Amino acid sequence: MIGTSKPGSVAKEDTPRGLGFEDFEVGQIFESGATTVDATAIKAFAGQFDPQPFHLDETAAASSIFGGLAASGWHTAALSMGLMVRGGLPVEGGMIGAGVDIAWPRPVRPGDTLRVVSEVTGIRPSRSKPDRGIVTVLSRTLNQNGETVQELTSRIVVFRRT
Amino acid sequence: MIGTSKPGSVAKEDTPRGLGFEDFEVGQIFESGATTVDATAIKAFAGQFDPQPFHLDETAAASSIFGGLAASGWHTAALSMGLMVRGGLPVEGGMIGAGVDIAWPRPVRPGDTLRVVSEVTGIRPSRSKPDRGIVTVLSRTLNQNGETVQELTSRIVVFRRT
Repeated sequence: MIGTSKPGSVAKEDTPRGLGFEDFEVGQIFESGATTVDATAIKAFAGQFDPQPFHLDETAAASSIFGGLAASGWHTAALSMGLMVRGGLPVEGGMIGAGVDIAWPRPVRPGDTLRVVSEVTGIRPSRSKPDRGIVTVLSRTLNQNGETVQELTSRIVVFRRT
Repeated sequence: MIGTSKPGSVAKEDTPRGLGFEDFEVGQIFESGATTVDATAIKAFAGQFDPQPFHLDETAAASSIFGGLAASGWHTAALSMGLMVRGGLPVEGGMIGAGVDIAWPRPVRPGDTLRVVSEVTGIRPSRSKPDRGIVTVLSRTLNQNGETVQELTSRIVVFRRT
């Protein structure tokens, strides 16, 4: 984790202090806290946003490709975002995604504890807007066994502090 | 929308009848129903999964890059998935995403009514598993003005009916 308190920086009242565009470097690693997801949460999310049998019902899930109840990939994505926003990827002014790629190599199961490890893989100043740039981050969501359940590549709009 | 009731097909009890791998063709178009998202839902999703000021609070959002309250992109993605699962993209046995790319060219605002128009852009039989293939679909989520708020490219695992 990277400390960024600098004497000249101004903390905005409504956003946590984080990194500006000039603070990012390729190869930086950030680690989030952890969160555990249970069957109730998996079914609640699925009922609202992804009502498919393998996300809703243990019996139906057992005979599906997943072989048991599995969280919606969108649930995994949303939980991962929560972990990043709550300290896993501290961006000054907030995380604004220009676009993402996602892969889900393995399902999330009831009781899994997830955390996100993010690595900066690219930095590109904006050509037209000198106050910002795009930071590309590869964020792996890992379960309690260290297995990757999601690979997310995000292109994030980050403003300069100055 | 494409009808697929065939005398020989077997409907599974726990899944809606949909298309098998052999039913897909490049260029097919599918349209979902519609859903409207209000400020309460935007803030509830953000509070749980993406607690950033521009998704939570009108005043903070007004002075942000969004210029007003905007839904989390993950909320837009989840609502779009719901529209596809509920009839917008009828896949036999369910929609199982191998991976996705997403862009959010425009924010979703309170009161927006969203629908999804999906186009099949690629079809590839599995090399190792003859019972399935990957169907690539470009799904545009549109607001009530016909503006694109999300472009989602999904690589979906689809089983053959036979």
